[in-house]
Amino acid sequence: MRKMSHLSARTRTVVELLAAKRDGAELATDEIKSLVAGLVAGTVADYQFSAFLMAVFLRGMTDQETVALTEAMLHSGRVLNLTEVPGVKVDKHSTGGVGDKTSIALAPLVAACGVPVPMVSGRGLGHTGGTLDKLEAIPGFRTDLSTEDFRKTVREIGTSMIGQTADIAPADKRIYALRDVTATVECIPLIVASILSKKLAEGIDALVLDVKVGSGAFMKNMDHARALALALVAVGKRAGKDVRAILTQMDNPLGNAIGNANETSEAIDILKGTAPFDVTECTLVLAEEMLTAGKVAATREQARARLNRAIADGSALRKLETMIERHGGNPRVCQDASIMPQPDVSVPVLAASEGYVIGIDAFALGILGVSLGAGRTRADQKVDHAVGFNLYKKPGEAVTKGEPLAMMLLRSQHDPSATAERVLGAYKIGSKAEADAAQKPLVLDRI
Amino acid sequence: MRKMSHLSARTRTVVELLAAKRDGAELATDEIKSLVAGLVAGTVADYQFSAFLMAVFLRGMTDQETVALTEAMLHSGRVLNLTEVPGVKVDKHSTGGVGDKTSIALAPLVAACGVPVPMVSGRGLGHTGGTLDKLEAIPGFRTDLSTEDFRKTVREIGTSMIGQTADIAPADKRIYALRDVTATVECIPLIVASILSKKLAEGIDALVLDVKVGSGAFMKNMDHARALALALVAVGKRAGKDVRAILTQMDNPLGNAIGNANETSEAIDILKGTAPFDVTECTLVLAEEMLTAGKVAATREQARARLNRAIADGSALRKLETMIERHGGNPRVCQDASIMPQPDVSVPVLAASEGYVIGIDAFALGILGVSLGAGRTRADQKVDHAVGFNLYKKPGEAVTKGEPLAMMLLRSQHDPSATAERVLGAYKIGSKAEADAAQKPLVLDRI
Repeated sequence: MRKMSHLSARTRTVVELLAAKRDGAELATDEIKSLVAGLVAGTVADYQFSAFLMAVFLRGMTDQETVALTEAMLHSGRVLNLTEVPGVKVDKHSTGGVGDKTSIALAPLVAACGVPVPMVSGRGLGHTGGTLDKLEAIPGFRTDLSTEDFRKTVREIGTSMIGQTADIAPADKRIYALRDVTATVECIPLIVASILSKKLAEGIDALVLDVKVGSGAFMKNMDHARALALALVAVGKRAGKDVRAILTQMDNPLGNAIGNANETSEAIDILKGTAPFDVTECTLVLAEEMLTAGKVAATREQARARLNRAIADGSALRKLETMIERHGGNPRVCQDASIMPQPDVSVPVLAASEGYVIGIDAFALGILGVSLGAGRTRADQKVDHAVGFNLYKKPGEAVTKGEPLAMMLLRSQHDPSATAERVLGAYKIGSKAEADAAQKPLVLDRI
Repeated sequence: MRKMSHLSARTRTVVELLAAKRDGAELATDEIKSLVAGLVAGTVADYQFSAFLMAVFLRGMTDQETVALTEAMLHSGRVLNLTEVPGVKVDKHSTGGVGDKTSIALAPLVAACGVPVPMVSGRGLGHTGGTLDKLEAIPGFRTDLSTEDFRKTVREIGTSMIGQTADIAPADKRIYALRDVTATVECIPLIVASILSKKLAEGIDALVLDVKVGSGAFMKNMDHARALALALVAVGKRAGKDVRAILTQMDNPLGNAIGNANETSEAIDILKGTAPFDVTECTLVLAEEMLTAGKVAATREQARARLNRAIADGSALRKLETMIERHGGNPRVCQDASIMPQPDVSVPVLAASEGYVIGIDAFALGILGVSLGAGRTRADQKVDHAVGFNLYKKPGEAVTKGEPLAMMLLRSQHDPSATAERVLGAYKIGSKAEADAAQKPLVLDRI
């Protein structure tokens, strides 16, 4: 086989491109675009693209290749134009964790501070939950606004939260479906292109990434998480966006609520200033970055002051109420969370011994929640918004024997004692010294 | 994802098997068999299998895995049982070269010496020719005998040469078709499994492999060729067969004829003792190995003496005539090659300078032959049996300006001067010292 240079006038065949990537060569931007366009058009077969994905998994991609892949996927569908909305449009994306309901508080909070937040979110899959599922616990809330209504809502109230429409990055859907069945999911350039192609389609100017690290996250260790964050920031910047990443701890669940309705309730509490410290702090850290990216604050300190004011004066909560109303939801949920679906029974999990909480296995609780119906293992499954857990004891806290560690929100068909045993198994109890030594800061790094 | 040991009672999913191979792990025999069976049954999708092929290309396979793949492909179809045919059944397989017509002489020659040769051959693809195309240049010759007629012919006359029937290793056809379009052809374990699964389906006891090395072969250098030969022998032996490999030189075309009818004519000449030295010697070296594997000769020397006798007494040629007759072909071709398709014009290529032939680019002439119609670039193309080249000057020989280097066998629509220019380009002419230094032995290694 002749070796062709990128400068060659001859277009390389699909097989030649696969061979080049297989051998670790860098493909030209047009070549990557032709592969993606070919997949969508049907001239590149699924079995060719999946071989390409495996070659990328094992050989990697340069930042330039990842930019090309991102842009090819982005331009496979509709790219929103929000230039009519004044200001720097900023969104946040989290790589996914257990108990992470920050988006629901962040979007209205940041919008209340004057930064437009056009947010296209996802659903839960595997052990991590999804913002759309949590929002849909609110009676009437529609996450399927048309692109036009989304744009109008952002323009008029500063934020809107919807699901990915069929015309946003269709190539990403095709490619993700192939990755899912060919063991090519956990691959940084492919993850980067998937995240950024969807987010850039929203018409944003800046993006703050919450890269979760730990047993409850997709990235289990700092090296992988930092590599992903660096790639996201580098590729996003090459695509002309102000992209920042914060690495946050996800060994333990974020906040007390794991589920859907109860997580939405906790997100509302963030805006009331009554939510647990960790989830409030995580929201504020991300919001600070969105405010500086959105150019309404010069420093994180200024941003924090502005955010605290929006919570204290109720403007953030009112923004959430307005947003819920504009999406067809009942804003009374902000005063009365019980209008959301409720479990059949609430059963406490009692501590079997005394000591201190060293840690709570977020992954185990995430999976347990899925098994109760709070999440899904296949994209076509429905979720039960009522079920889940409310944690009473968090890492570092003292526990006496017989004291409630958590409340299980169950359906009558669930087995409370078997479930309680698994919750107990997720709690690691030990000495005060062990518990103190295990505590990590929320923010692990900024990129 | 949990890591499962091979001893686990739980069957791993297809995605888990892909992930394991992707990460360089060894798959269990049953796991490889389930992937191949799944591909054939449709429960493993093409796009999953092609990702597996790319992972194998980049991560390799152990001999045990290759044995499992070979046997899975072998048992995807019918395996001939030739135990009714007395003697050690031996076949030969060549990895493909330019001008390689040895099979057509070998099968009757070895059969004439008392070793049954059930030979299932292939067609030309790319720059290399195929035995079936060459045989079909003989008027009436049928390469599509039924499995029953093939078995009967081997039993009655000691040899038969057919093409792969639909029921032989169907998984190989599926997998090869995927490899061809996913840049996973040049991968030793996949090549080994493809070759051996088809050959073992013939019901043979022993196999002699002609692993060609050089610019006109698939294996361009000794390291790759030796690695392939070692893998073929190791995997063949683990499958219970007596497998031997000879590495032969394929920088230059083998013999003088490149085409189809003219190659068949040269193969007939081998059995008359009038063919060029290189192609005769290559045939005899392979035949020696087949005779010792077939246990009709104890040493190569004894085998050589027996082979020379079969050529000298005409028994080898008579065996070919009988075989042609049994396949519906006209045996008169052995006395009159002109009953095969003839070109419209024969045009000599004249030397542009004097000197010595350093080498002849076999790959270039192979590709040029394909462009004239002697071969094919897609499996569904027909070949023109008449066209090709007869080389008059071989490496090491002296050339004077204006002397014919080769004869082009063309159709009237071909452009003789453009073709001649490309033939000239394939000839490397230089000093005697250069030519002498470039000559390599035919047999490069034995494994």
